[in-house]
Amino acid sequence: MPADTIGPLDEFGRIRQYLAPLAAAAPGALGLTDDAALIQPPPGQILVVTADALVEGVHFLPGDPPDLIARKLLRCNLSDLAAMAATPDAYVMTMALPKRCDDRWVERFASGLALDQAEFGVTLLGGDSVSTPGPITLSVTAFGHALPDRIIRRGGARPGDLLYVSGTIGDGALGLLAATGQLFELDAEDRRFLEDRYRLPRPRLALGAALGGIAGAMMDISDGLVGDLDHLASVSQVAATIDAASLPLSAAAASALALDPDHLATILTGGDDYELLFTAPPQADIAAIGATLGVLVTPIGRISEGAGVTIVDRDGAALPLARRGYRHA
Amino acid sequence: MPADTIGPLDEFGRIRQYLAPLAAAAPGALGLTDDAALIQPPPGQILVVTADALVEGVHFLPGDPPDLIARKLLRCNLSDLAAMAATPDAYVMTMALPKRCDDRWVERFASGLALDQAEFGVTLLGGDSVSTPGPITLSVTAFGHALPDRIIRRGGARPGDLLYVSGTIGDGALGLLAATGQLFELDAEDRRFLEDRYRLPRPRLALGAALGGIAGAMMDISDGLVGDLDHLASVSQVAATIDAASLPLSAAAASALALDPDHLATILTGGDDYELLFTAPPQADIAAIGATLGVLVTPIGRISEGAGVTIVDRDGAALPLARRGYRHA
Repeated sequence: MPADTIGPLDEFGRIRQYLAPLAAAAPGALGLTDDAALIQPPPGQILVVTADALVEGVHFLPGDPPDLIARKLLRCNLSDLAAMAATPDAYVMTMALPKRCDDRWVERFASGLALDQAEFGVTLLGGDSVSTPGPITLSVTAFGHALPDRIIRRGGARPGDLLYVSGTIGDGALGLLAATGQLFELDAEDRRFLEDRYRLPRPRLALGAALGGIAGAMMDISDGLVGDLDHLASVSQVAATIDAASLPLSAAAASALALDPDHLATILTGGDDYELLFTAPPQADIAAIGATLGVLVTPIGRISEGAGVTIVDRDGAALPLARRGYRHA
Repeated sequence: MPADTIGPLDEFGRIRQYLAPLAAAAPGALGLTDDAALIQPPPGQILVVTADALVEGVHFLPGDPPDLIARKLLRCNLSDLAAMAATPDAYVMTMALPKRCDDRWVERFASGLALDQAEFGVTLLGGDSVSTPGPITLSVTAFGHALPDRIIRRGGARPGDLLYVSGTIGDGALGLLAATGQLFELDAEDRRFLEDRYRLPRPRLALGAALGGIAGAMMDISDGLVGDLDHLASVSQVAATIDAASLPLSAAAASALALDPDHLATILTGGDDYELLFTAPPQADIAAIGATLGVLVTPIGRISEGAGVTIVDRDGAALPLARRGYRHA
């Protein structure tokens, strides 16, 4: 290490030391030494682009491990690409960091990105690193590709379609409760499971890509099942019904619900699930796709003519729901 | 206005009301109602991507008019595309806004974006809007296109090349001084001119595109002439010499310098110019390109073998310079 980099690094030093290695495999990143980067979608494919920002104290907790913050940042964006049935390629990132985020913090943050770059096959392409007098504020724009006719949008739900979710629902919101010292009535292992689900989303990329050209409408559940489904129904100009009894719950979420039935509202409207919500016609063999990929896929309701979201109990009676969606604001 | 939008709008309402109109001309934006957006570079062209973040109190002043903040945000990014000789197309934006940024603030912010979208021919494609307990923090990822063999990078400077800048140098940094109540020795009109240059960069898109395939190396001057030239020289593995007497100064900057010779350091190392810095072989008729476009282009020095940046006075004697570059940090 040359003498002039002993001690804290400046912005350029940090980029060279911790971020440039994340871009080494992408020729279009130009070594992070230029004004911009270059992208070319594969022939015949269209570029799919999404951007999400995370703010300390709003989307993650102050003191959360930097590697997990990095991975959540990347995964939130990858989840959006999954919801379009796109395959991820690369991302650009802007970081506004307070002075207390020292070189060690940035190094650990970069190590989280490196882990997920390897897991999901993406590379850093470029970005910006600036200082802030405020909370850690991160923004990623992620790029993927898809064949144009296999992209799934939110507006394709049709009356008669079945409604599905991947994985289990409610773990993210219950995990936030657990991470902030609530849910103390649960045993420690359940709390740890839920916290982990809050801190580390699992973007459903393989499932999303497999549903390309098959699903009717698709989106990821980031703001809460009911609120997000309301968007999907609205854009598709249809009504949606959820069978509350069919919701796939983790063992930990089921325990929380058994201890306090009010958690049903958290499960239905809480955010941070990052599971896929999608519709498909009844003849589509969605169960086979889930089984092939080893991903839990559960039918949770149906699409009909009309508008809005209805939640029904085991007997088909509508359940009232005070909170329509979870807002980070 | 429907009854349910009387009073403050939520995130979705703001996107629908103020941001969706900015995306109306871009089919790939999908109406800002989906998880991601779609981009396809024109046939044979490559996509050029850049990202910059702005933080209140660091890159713009608290209380700056929201429309000017929006335009500066967009223009910083467009300046990076200009520096690659790319033609801009679109952008995605993430906004982290404190509660005090009410609907009226967002409306004025969007009106600034609309102005510059029309001026520069770009459209909003997507993004994210979140709340923050901290300062206004904005991030834009901008997209342009270029023929692959016309892109100009930072590493193409060669010994014997001449060194050029567009426009005038130092106005941005002097403008920041003026905007923060310094430079009171200047007359009011000069102060206003410099403040305006600080608040509203002029990305040199036409010049940048015209230099495609012609310039050797190019970058935009955002962190200060000397510091940025040092990067260009380093990536190109060459030395650069600036003739201080040849620096193009605005009348206002010349007045400031006449009143206080110490402002030379501000002019040479201050940030926020957003002019183009580029090299070209002596036989390239750069003057004609500037004249055709009506953009001031000035030769300010030369490239030679070696490393680093030297600044010389009228007699060729090296000037010492304490500050090597301007850092926002």
